[in-house]
Amino acid sequence: MNRLFHVPLSPFCRKVRLSLAEKKVEVELVEERYWERNPEFLRRNPAGKVPILKIDGQLLTESAAICEYLEEKHPEPALLPRDPEGRYEVRRLVSWFDDKFHNEVTSNLLYERVNKKVMGAGYPESKNVKAGAKAIKYHLDYMGWLLDQRRWLAGNELSLADFAAAAHLSSLDYIRDVDWNRNANVRDWYAKIKSRPAFRSILADQIPGFPQPAHYADLDF
Amino acid sequence: MNRLFHVPLSPFCRKVRLSLAEKKVEVELVEERYWERNPEFLRRNPAGKVPILKIDGQLLTESAAICEYLEEKHPEPALLPRDPEGRYEVRRLVSWFDDKFHNEVTSNLLYERVNKKVMGAGYPESKNVKAGAKAIKYHLDYMGWLLDQRRWLAGNELSLADFAAAAHLSSLDYIRDVDWNRNANVRDWYAKIKSRPAFRSILADQIPGFPQPAHYADLDF
Repeated sequence: MNRLFHVPLSPFCRKVRLSLAEKKVEVELVEERYWERNPEFLRRNPAGKVPILKIDGQLLTESAAICEYLEEKHPEPALLPRDPEGRYEVRRLVSWFDDKFHNEVTSNLLYERVNKKVMGAGYPESKNVKAGAKAIKYHLDYMGWLLDQRRWLAGNELSLADFAAAAHLSSLDYIRDVDWNRNANVRDWYAKIKSRPAFRSILADQIPGFPQPAHYADLDF
Repeated sequence: MNRLFHVPLSPFCRKVRLSLAEKKVEVELVEERYWERNPEFLRRNPAGKVPILKIDGQLLTESAAICEYLEEKHPEPALLPRDPEGRYEVRRLVSWFDDKFHNEVTSNLLYERVNKKVMGAGYPESKNVKAGAKAIKYHLDYMGWLLDQRRWLAGNELSLADFAAAAHLSSLDYIRDVDWNRNANVRDWYAKIKSRPAFRSILADQIPGFPQPAHYADLDF
């Protein structure tokens, strides 16, 4: 049986969960409190982080490398286009969300508000929370601008870029940090992606100590 | 003419320079002081960072996406193997160096010692420099362990993983932050990669205010 060692609100884990579900690769989800540095876990992954995917007799780490591997082993439905220019644009946006958006928004909001509490690492730093709340506006505007020209973020087909973005935004939505009224394109895009069967497991997540808000799993939010 | 907007000691730029040179894609190097946030530069790249590659009538950003694009457009010589397992391992290690090594080592040593001075952003934080000097040992040991089992970092062929690692280590070597006596495998590996024609431009770099140390360009260091 395939297994994904994960943390429910981690955007990197969510991106892999969405890819697996879209490609109908069955996987057992195992929650991993990686910050407790359980020796058994560190043996599986010397980088000491999630996601880790147990598949085809191997233990895979690094979400970008995992998603490319899944694309090559399970090419249908495709999450990368065929032409190098289209593939470039998907990968550029995956990096945009997993690097820039992550540093400017996710780490300032989700990690301050949730991870610190769960890991017993103190209280949110209000300077960081403010910076994250400011930065997300610019990112939502950038997404709105992309979606003015395209059906999905990287082009006219759903791709890994949409899953990377939706992974971050859905985790932030769980803690009510996304203003869906800011940009109609982004709201429509999120409604479309949220209604996919691949999204169901994500909408069912429940984090102890952080009750799921009512709009979170509502397809008509 | 292809152009690469870059900063000489940036490991992300160096990784792209090495890929371009190995594939014999000619490019004009243009130094970009991105931290000055020149409006013309920000128009080219809203992410406000280097490298940016002007090629095939496009402006490409994000070094991982650029390297995959170059691989698809210029497949020979290959920097990724053909099998999904081999490709996974290369991509895992590229992320290892560009994410984990970067956060634990490069940003603590190179950014503290060089970038802060060049950008006029103050003095090195000795706590960070110490953390970087400690972390690099563990990474050199990990590389040595990989090279016990393989000719190159990700397998028996040279790959993007070697270029990612060499990009970080060569920048750190410029500021004398690599102890080449720590691990004989790593030293042999670096001697091998340093002697490739693709490495010549990197060994010729000169940073104003930071004279090149004598051993840096010496193939018999």
